[in-house]
Amino acid sequence: MATPESKPRHIFLAPAPRAVADIFDADDLARLKALGTLTIHEDGPVTDTVFDKHAAHADIMIGQFDLPAERLAKASSLRAVFNVEGNFLANVDYAECFRKGVRVLNISPVFAEPVAEAALGMAIDLARGISRSDRYFRAGTERYGLEANREAFTLYRQDIGFIGMGDLGRAILPLLRPFGAHVRAYDPWLPAMWIESTGCEPASLETVLRTSKVVFVVAGVTSENQGFLGAKEFSMMPEGAALVLVSRAGVVDFDAMLDFAAKGRIRVATDVFPEEPVSPTHRARSIDHMVLSPHAAGALDGALREIGKRVVADAELIARGLPSAMCKVAQPETVALFRSKPVSKS
Amino acid sequence: MATPESKPRHIFLAPAPRAVADIFDADDLARLKALGTLTIHEDGPVTDTVFDKHAAHADIMIGQFDLPAERLAKASSLRAVFNVEGNFLANVDYAECFRKGVRVLNISPVFAEPVAEAALGMAIDLARGISRSDRYFRAGTERYGLEANREAFTLYRQDIGFIGMGDLGRAILPLLRPFGAHVRAYDPWLPAMWIESTGCEPASLETVLRTSKVVFVVAGVTSENQGFLGAKEFSMMPEGAALVLVSRAGVVDFDAMLDFAAKGRIRVATDVFPEEPVSPTHRARSIDHMVLSPHAAGALDGALREIGKRVVADAELIARGLPSAMCKVAQPETVALFRSKPVSKS
Amino acid sequence: MATPESKPRHIFLAPAPRAVADIFDADDLARLKALGTLTIHEDGPVTDTVFDKHAAHADIMIGQFDLPAERLAKASSLRAVFNVEGNFLANVDYAECFRKGVRVLNISPVFAEPVAEAALGMAIDLARGISRSDRYFRAGTERYGLEANREAFTLYRQDIGFIGMGDLGRAILPLLRPFGAHVRAYDPWLPAMWIESTGCEPASLETVLRTSKVVFVVAGVTSENQGFLGAKEFSMMPEGAALVLVSRAGVVDFDAMLDFAAKGRIRVATDVFPEEPVSPTHRARSIDHMVLSPHAAGALDGALREIGKRVVADAELIARGLPSAMCKVAQPETVALFRSKPVSKS
Amino acid sequence: MATPESKPRHIFLAPAPRAVADIFDADDLARLKALGTLTIHEDGPVTDTVFDKHAAHADIMIGQFDLPAERLAKASSLRAVFNVEGNFLANVDYAECFRKGVRVLNISPVFAEPVAEAALGMAIDLARGISRSDRYFRAGTERYGLEANREAFTLYRQDIGFIGMGDLGRAILPLLRPFGAHVRAYDPWLPAMWIESTGCEPASLETVLRTSKVVFVVAGVTSENQGFLGAKEFSMMPEGAALVLVSRAGVVDFDAMLDFAAKGRIRVATDVFPEEPVSPTHRARSIDHMVLSPHAAGALDGALREIGKRVVADAELIARGLPSAMCKVAQPETVALFRSKPVSKS
Repeated sequence: MATPESKPRHIFLAPAPRAVADIFDADDLARLKALGTLTIHEDGPVTDTVFDKHAAHADIMIGQFDLPAERLAKASSLRAVFNVEGNFLANVDYAECFRKGVRVLNISPVFAEPVAEAALGMAIDLARGISRSDRYFRAGTERYGLEANREAFTLYRQDIGFIGMGDLGRAILPLLRPFGAHVRAYDPWLPAMWIESTGCEPASLETVLRTSKVVFVVAGVTSENQGFLGAKEFSMMPEGAALVLVSRAGVVDFDAMLDFAAKGRIRVATDVFPEEPVSPTHRARSIDHMVLSPHAAGALDGALREIGKRVVADAELIARGLPSAMCKVAQPETVALFRSKPVSKS
Repeated sequence: MATPESKPRHIFLAPAPRAVADIFDADDLARLKALGTLTIHEDGPVTDTVFDKHAAHADIMIGQFDLPAERLAKASSLRAVFNVEGNFLANVDYAECFRKGVRVLNISPVFAEPVAEAALGMAIDLARGISRSDRYFRAGTERYGLEANREAFTLYRQDIGFIGMGDLGRAILPLLRPFGAHVRAYDPWLPAMWIESTGCEPASLETVLRTSKVVFVVAGVTSENQGFLGAKEFSMMPEGAALVLVSRAGVVDFDAMLDFAAKGRIRVATDVFPEEPVSPTHRARSIDHMVLSPHAAGALDGALREIGKRVVADAELIARGLPSAMCKVAQPETVALFRSKPVSKS
Repeated sequence: MATPESKPRHIFLAPAPRAVADIFDADDLARLKALGTLTIHEDGPVTDTVFDKHAAHADIMIGQFDLPAERLAKASSLRAVFNVEGNFLANVDYAECFRKGVRVLNISPVFAEPVAEAALGMAIDLARGISRSDRYFRAGTERYGLEANREAFTLYRQDIGFIGMGDLGRAILPLLRPFGAHVRAYDPWLPAMWIESTGCEPASLETVLRTSKVVFVVAGVTSENQGFLGAKEFSMMPEGAALVLVSRAGVVDFDAMLDFAAKGRIRVATDVFPEEPVSPTHRARSIDHMVLSPHAAGALDGALREIGKRVVADAELIARGLPSAMCKVAQPETVALFRSKPVSKS
Repeated sequence: MATPESKPRHIFLAPAPRAVADIFDADDLARLKALGTLTIHEDGPVTDTVFDKHAAHADIMIGQFDLPAERLAKASSLRAVFNVEGNFLANVDYAECFRKGVRVLNISPVFAEPVAEAALGMAIDLARGISRSDRYFRAGTERYGLEANREAFTLYRQDIGFIGMGDLGRAILPLLRPFGAHVRAYDPWLPAMWIESTGCEPASLETVLRTSKVVFVVAGVTSENQGFLGAKEFSMMPEGAALVLVSRAGVVDFDAMLDFAAKGRIRVATDVFPEEPVSPTHRARSIDHMVLSPHAAGALDGALREIGKRVVADAELIARGLPSAMCKVAQPETVALFRSKPVSKS
């Protein structure tokens, strides 16, 4: 840092399939322009021609376009690539970026709060039967008071489990704290000591499943954990326990999960589905012990508007030679593990 | 206290319409018996005959039976009356109790946590559209991601208002704290200084209504405030704001509230209704911008079981000559103001 | 209450030994005057002549003057007495007040925060050796780094105990929460359930003493607990444990406490002393393992200024027929137990 | 990462000037050995001979020995270097490490909690005059109650400032939260948005100084900010404001700071000094408005014992191909900026 940089900077912005106007406001764009020449490309894909002409000389690239080694080889000034997406997609040659000292970032932090809020809302819904009671009311089959609450339980001082304790789990934790819950967390990527420092008890997957009345599934999909929550795991859960799935459908055996919900063995809230849109005749649509959410946990307008602000703040730091602070930084150890589809969470 | 008391104590327990077994477990009853002679009456109402024979000499009475001045006159040893109900009903001569130094208590604190949890769940539901999205999903009309969230907002850093800041409001506040909300509270019974000490901004009713995206209505009904939230007040609320009603239906003009919800002007979640059960053809049942809850916010099994524990803990204190700590104590200034129907919240 | 009151109200204010100007600002006085006729008496004691002429017809009395039954008999309009002191002194006939439905209040809540802050400061001081290290530095005998910390310990995740869990204890608890301490509390006046609701573990006196590395003594002196912490109790404390005494010197055997501190067996911080001022040659002045505080934990200017604001806020409520909210209300069960000297904590 | 690694791993541990036994317990060492061959070198410096024989083939190095490019060139298996020190010293060729994909880590997180606790203790001490009152008591010059508190103030709802908001600042913040303080933070390396996310108000250095009654100086020394807090800055502080210096003496003009403290213009607590040990005749030793701490804020036994646990936990992750989680990772952008002397904070 801090080395005064005399040469003009170039910023290349091509955020498709997002629109510039959805994620950057006038002030954000003004701040980007204050850093150097800003080239915005919204007119079709970033072809090689476009790349060579507008992107190759950029110091900072913002978008989701392909960055194979050949393109990176041309980008000799490149210092940072911002993916305006919640994941690190497979269309970037990360190893080459690391070799060249290019920072690759994504904006997943913008989704942490809205998803955490939705996850808590769904957990209370499952525990207290909010949407189900409302549905019965509309059908004229509601019961009242204690009668309505035969299956209800509370989050207060409850045993609650997390599968995964990454950024999203950590965003949910503060929302649970006032409930005085006992939280156990399973995360094979994190040391027990780390989990303890969040106020949670580190636990095995089995312990989390067997002891928790509510389980938040917030693990990402990697090349290794697809479908790792299946019938065997669901059968470990206590009768009537609740599962809240807000990360990726790929981590569960979705059919097995529906089986357990259909027979009322567990309750399930899910924001994600193996195929979206969900087939009109999908059996999930009529399972009583479910809360169905249309991939809406993170996709708030406010989250999108925050994307631009995070990117600009970090671009400013990077232009000054400082480490980024607002976006998620790709790490050599993990970036290749994640196998998200190039369809945004939002 | 602390005056050694030699004479044996008598405790009279007649909790109808609650059943002893629903609110006291074996350990609770054993503790009561350790305080003196325990007479349990579950066999019909507490007639004068029953009263004279079993209750009149009691030091501590537990139940919801009538206590007019004539009965109190006979109860010369009486030190405390526990109403196993969330309200102070009109069938007790409170003024006479105060004159005689008899403590009258109710167990409303057991409902604070479950109602707070339900209120938060309903607030998130209205803000994020959880039960509505689920309903659309079941109807096959769901949209996804941003499309699903056109009307969604978040509680994070939101303007939130309270109408009333009594025990229930204070139970909701800690649940909101991690959202970093700006909370304004209107409570004409509490000094500005007091409201500030809870971290809220004291505000007029109008300011609370005009500035809040979510309004929690947690005021009790008094002889003076029936229906004080009507069309004029709802029209002050911002377009699309959410109203969560968990105290008493009597504080709102229910029809006006439904009008505003029906036209989508505001969103409403309510746990209470002017008449329960609600008529099968009641229009509330089909209003899209509502969450309907069948008087279930407080009536959890766990809350009932806590009743006995609170009563016993306070009975033990009172037997030792100490002030109670776990139940709500009737205050001369306010007890006559509340006009609850003798039907329990739960 | 809410009942319109037509007759003019009278307020009699005679706060000696405090001065009106120290506890009421212009705004406070204006608010008092808005409630009715305000008579201020600062010119000598409230003799019977003064009382009969200026106080007897008052609705609200503010001060520390004597209120025996004879005076109360004359005070037929009296509704509330505010003691501008942190205690309920023995010069009021409380039983008579309760019979007449007169509320008696004191302003002890103003001291809770400053005393809690000082108590935490003294606890960290004892644990980390702050004032002792500073003293060594000034004597030129300091050691550095680890050498300086041979006896130091931290409050993080520490075992901490409370003797007493009244208003003051409850003010200290939030300050300890971020340290993740395990807190045990002994309070014979409070049910286990109540103590649990504060997040503490209810424990016997012996358990608190034997397990805690820091003990906060925040119990008031009653007719029954004078000197209840003596050599036997101190000898239960772990080697090098810290005792923070901020309530009343009368609850400890002060000499025994000094013995244990003098031999380095425990560390002691005290804000209170059996006689104040302390004799110039008192041995406490030279004990190395002590922090000596000159009855200064509560007596901040800001606390005094808060007295007036709390009194006025409650006077306004009482004038409206509502319960007070900002001052401590005397309870029949306990008021006679406390045996504070009529010398203010501050 | 996750790819099973068949070749045996080598770990080289040479923590001088720390001793292995001070920072690793038996369990820690057993866990290290479970990762591969462990070579411990405590017998003198890591000469080239020692390095070539014992360290060069290591996958993981733990210590503070020199790692110039020549040594790194030999270390072809090297994946991570743990500095068992709170800083990144100048004796490592960081640029070469980054090029080779070698992670460099230090254990500064172990000091965050103890330093935060000490900083809070010193802040309360300065605000409330704890060590000064104790000193007066020992000199027989104490005053009591309000008289003792003429200059005292409280942290409750106080304006508090931070200069720097790195790991240490973030450890202090939760301790301040229960005081309801208004916190402003100046940190030129962090975006306003980031500072806001911590609940603080981003502010200029001047605003922090002019508005804060307590200023925590927690900025590290860089090649650019030496002595940046001088007479000009101290003169911006309000009369009687408190400065708590717990990072590095190099960030202040120490003489100017002492001048301001000596005349009572500000109060100062410092854990660090330009030269340690401090000269016996140093004027700081007799300044009344100071709290002097002998570089003891972080150097607790417990912190040292935590070093081993953090190193082992991260070594285990690194051995599995995962990112570290418990130690501080050197960042290309900043590592060269810090100019700490190779003398540990602790």
